[in-house]
Amino acid sequence: MTDQSLNPNQKDKLLFTPGPLTTSETVKQAMLRDLGSRDTEFIHAVWEVRHRLVKLSGASEADYTAIIIQGSGTFGVESVIGSTIPPNGKLLVVINGAYGRRIAQIASVLKIDHTELVFAENQAPTPEAVRAALAADPHITDVAVIHCETTTGIINPVEAIGAVVKEFDCCYIVDAMSSFGAVPLDMQAANIDFLVSSANKCIEGVPGFSFAIARRLTLAASRGFARSLSLDLLAQWEGLEETGQFRFTPPTHAILAYYQALQELEAEGGIEARGARYRSNYETCLAGMQQLGFKPYLDPQNRGYIITSFHYPDHPNFNFKKFYENLSDKGYVIYPGKLSKVNCFRIGHVGRIGPADVNGLLVAIRSALAEMQITLS
Amino acid sequence: MTDQSLNPNQKDKLLFTPGPLTTSETVKQAMLRDLGSRDTEFIHAVWEVRHRLVKLSGASEADYTAIIIQGSGTFGVESVIGSTIPPNGKLLVVINGAYGRRIAQIASVLKIDHTELVFAENQAPTPEAVRAALAADPHITDVAVIHCETTTGIINPVEAIGAVVKEFDCCYIVDAMSSFGAVPLDMQAANIDFLVSSANKCIEGVPGFSFAIARRLTLAASRGFARSLSLDLLAQWEGLEETGQFRFTPPTHAILAYYQALQELEAEGGIEARGARYRSNYETCLAGMQQLGFKPYLDPQNRGYIITSFHYPDHPNFNFKKFYENLSDKGYVIYPGKLSKVNCFRIGHVGRIGPADVNGLLVAIRSALAEMQITLS
Repeated sequence: MTDQSLNPNQKDKLLFTPGPLTTSETVKQAMLRDLGSRDTEFIHAVWEVRHRLVKLSGASEADYTAIIIQGSGTFGVESVIGSTIPPNGKLLVVINGAYGRRIAQIASVLKIDHTELVFAENQAPTPEAVRAALAADPHITDVAVIHCETTTGIINPVEAIGAVVKEFDCCYIVDAMSSFGAVPLDMQAANIDFLVSSANKCIEGVPGFSFAIARRLTLAASRGFARSLSLDLLAQWEGLEETGQFRFTPPTHAILAYYQALQELEAEGGIEARGARYRSNYETCLAGMQQLGFKPYLDPQNRGYIITSFHYPDHPNFNFKKFYENLSDKGYVIYPGKLSKVNCFRIGHVGRIGPADVNGLLVAIRSALAEMQITLS
Repeated sequence: MTDQSLNPNQKDKLLFTPGPLTTSETVKQAMLRDLGSRDTEFIHAVWEVRHRLVKLSGASEADYTAIIIQGSGTFGVESVIGSTIPPNGKLLVVINGAYGRRIAQIASVLKIDHTELVFAENQAPTPEAVRAALAADPHITDVAVIHCETTTGIINPVEAIGAVVKEFDCCYIVDAMSSFGAVPLDMQAANIDFLVSSANKCIEGVPGFSFAIARRLTLAASRGFARSLSLDLLAQWEGLEETGQFRFTPPTHAILAYYQALQELEAEGGIEARGARYRSNYETCLAGMQQLGFKPYLDPQNRGYIITSFHYPDHPNFNFKKFYENLSDKGYVIYPGKLSKVNCFRIGHVGRIGPADVNGLLVAIRSALAEMQITLS
């Protein structure tokens, strides 16, 4: 795996981003079909996708179910927040980056009472602080946290926080957008009621939908809470259960691609194997970048292997736009930063890429620095 | 065109539905790419799609703009209803089928004050009735109507209603989901503020997003009205204008397919030529079905050429599920009815199909009737 590109026939630039990602040829080819949304073959694919998602979550099918929601990952998060928090509920949002802030923004727009527990972007939230926040406010009914905060790549301790949430008998919502499928997590053991991710992340599908894996009992108890027709999670679930069909037109092609992607995940060896490949990408990238003189934003104990934030180098010739375009011209797409105060850029380790591809990126970065006349110590 | 199938290499069943539709091979092949959502080539495709949509609407680019919204057509309708009706506004929903009722349902869920002007499903709403409703209620600020009500296939007089809406200086919202791109309509002349359609309709793209074509002034005046983060139309527009990028992950593959589909629409001869092909499909279908003894639901003056509702035949052996499956096994997918009181099924005339394909369907229907031992007079 380390010697060969995973993409020998790739015509497009390789994507070192948080998604859309580079996907396999066979995933894309699965879209060369036109199936009706009520066709039995399509309904079977939807059924397979939903069942495989629950299986990947580590939860029992008796207790959990998967619901596909049209739109991007944020649509899935808004669907859960807007459909499952009671009218008189109160949400605690645990924040250490842009995606935590986005959940608070969703609650604001939906006029859902909420409070924010904010940590620095380079620090993981602590279960103790969550316990203190819950103890201080008995009105809180729901807690939301990000698993891998894509802003920095930090992995938050969702299991330990889940144990605290359980003490207070709150509903627990986890945004596992960029980690699901590559970072092992038993959602049932972690006491998670709703986990959200999307199609174009670690399962390596194409963008077009998100999904929630939901505890059946909590979901069933949310009747009448939905604040949107399109994003009504309970109605979407009931539609899928009753007829196998979507209430509103599904992205048939993206779902067929996803079914193929799930089969390819299984063929690769499941979450553990995929996580190992991504970790290998990360380690190759980090070592190479440090050798070139770049500094990662996070301290070692907080670093995940999904995406890494690097500080802008301290050199007068560095200009991110030029650096990005130089690499893009060489066939490698990296990602801008999203930190509130620090200038960083990001390199993703996910998608249909392997260490040989990462080495290609590192060669390109070395050349880009030389062309921009940047010498790092 | 009448002699040859448009789909000589089609491996899938032909779709005689309201969408997802049969699309061309080249439209599907446009998805065999992985572009980053911030990639210049992708941003260019988005720009092209948005500009071509305004051009197709007949409106001037100085006055109108196009906004792509992730999700199905209903997401686009909810985005417009939820983002542009003022907090103290009141919506008049003109209803003669399921899609009109859906707009009222969206208003209910979003707690938007609204009133319904209901017509029979086989009748077109009249401008006079709209005038009376507006004259009777000075609180009404917005009027919504469906162009082609897919429930029956009826074409509603949106131009004449638009003239009345203008008299009362209301905002005018038209759901042109299943007509846009094949039924000529000058939205500016019709006084339309917001027109909504989706990717998998008459432009013959794949499902994954919807879009609104919006009067810039009305859209700009909607600040602070949005009732959702994901479906915030003004924020989506501002994001696309400022950076060319989406606020949240776009369905890159579906958008690339759509860009190809728009080029193929132009190559076919634009809206007029596509409308002519669909009309030819419709006429072939109607004549053949009537010859077989089926009766269309609508009176001749109300029939459009997008989709046709046929009464269930009055024969004891007729069972829609068996009929549907028999045709599906023969490679032809038709569509169930959606009428509130009458048993009908539907045949769509849209997508990458031509009269030769329709003739194939008619042969299959004749066989199905024989196999089901149904003789119609």
